[in-house]
Amino acid sequence: MSHTVEGGPGSVRPGGRTARTRAAVLAATRAELVETGLARMTVEKVAVRAGVAKTTVYARWRDISGLIVDLLSELTLRTVPVPDTGSLEGDLRQVARSLLALFRSEPDRVTFEAVLATALQDARARAALSAFYVYRLDATAELVDRALARGEVPPGTDRLEVVRTLSSTFYYRTFFTGEPVTEQDADRTAAVAAHAAKAGLLVTPAP
Amino acid sequence: MSHTVEGGPGSVRPGGRTARTRAAVLAATRAELVETGLARMTVEKVAVRAGVAKTTVYARWRDISGLIVDLLSELTLRTVPVPDTGSLEGDLRQVARSLLALFRSEPDRVTFEAVLATALQDARARAALSAFYVYRLDATAELVDRALARGEVPPGTDRLEVVRTLSSTFYYRTFFTGEPVTEQDADRTAAVAAHAAKAGLLVTPAP
Repeated sequence: MSHTVEGGPGSVRPGGRTARTRAAVLAATRAELVETGLARMTVEKVAVRAGVAKTTVYARWRDISGLIVDLLSELTLRTVPVPDTGSLEGDLRQVARSLLALFRSEPDRVTFEAVLATALQDARARAALSAFYVYRLDATAELVDRALARGEVPPGTDRLEVVRTLSSTFYYRTFFTGEPVTEQDADRTAAVAAHAAKAGLLVTPAP
Repeated sequence: MSHTVEGGPGSVRPGGRTARTRAAVLAATRAELVETGLARMTVEKVAVRAGVAKTTVYARWRDISGLIVDLLSELTLRTVPVPDTGSLEGDLRQVARSLLALFRSEPDRVTFEAVLATALQDARARAALSAFYVYRLDATAELVDRALARGEVPPGTDRLEVVRTLSSTFYYRTFFTGEPVTEQDADRTAAVAAHAAKAGLLVTPAP
């Protein structure tokens, strides 16, 4: 996603008119996704809501998929605080509670669904979604580095796999089985991930 | 999904002309999904491939979403053998290897993606997808019942949660992070699920 940082849409002059246009267009994209839904969304409606010329949106983002790819790149650059409670399970439980809040927020869930639906049908959006997760997994895995430094988990523990083990149930329930995720489920997946890591089940196997 | 069994499309006279038509239309739906993709698929193309009148397809299935809902209901009724190796981890490892084969099959993955994309934009398809998983989770959880009977896991173990813990990583990697799933990942998720269940982490909490 580094091209977005270096020279992507709206990033040339941070805080300038280009950046303001991009912020308005991405906010309009999110709002249209939530209110209209992906299937009936158009570049024109996004432009009207953002208060910019539709030619500007076409020129910079090309189509709805381009808008969603850029929305993901913006989400990637947003800093998310990683908890530091002093224990692996405590940290994982906080991340799980944050994920719970995210999946319970109707606008966030709707945005998410639209991004996923686009990614399933557009290679660019899929690459952006994948890059988003690679970035987020890596950032969150900082809490595993601290557990490693404390000797809470064995050397060789796969730092990303700990976060994947925590996160996957939220996605599986929300998008596949259609089951709600409760506070108990969130705490349980934190306990399962911490337990697996401490028991050495998430150590990277020898090649 | 009971309406499909009792009186849905093609189920009135099993083995008769109605059933043959349904089988041909659902096979054509799968083939079109894989070759053409959801975005460019039409009822007309499905009818041509199935060798039936397009009015028949419109009358019975209404639209692409209707076809996909029925495809899911057919998959739900298909019997999947549940392994019985004598140990929980052995059984879970076999299920994980079956999931691995499923996710590695290009036609199956493409069909899956199309079903998911439809479910994200159509309430009927979403309900069908959810019913599909409720059915499959319940059927697979038979292996947890046997582990309970053997005393391998504590009483009160949530039989569905054991299967969810096993399965979710396949979905998370394939559809979100875009990371491949390896044999090692499959065996690892089986070990994590078995370990969590035996340690009592998947016991249903008191209400």
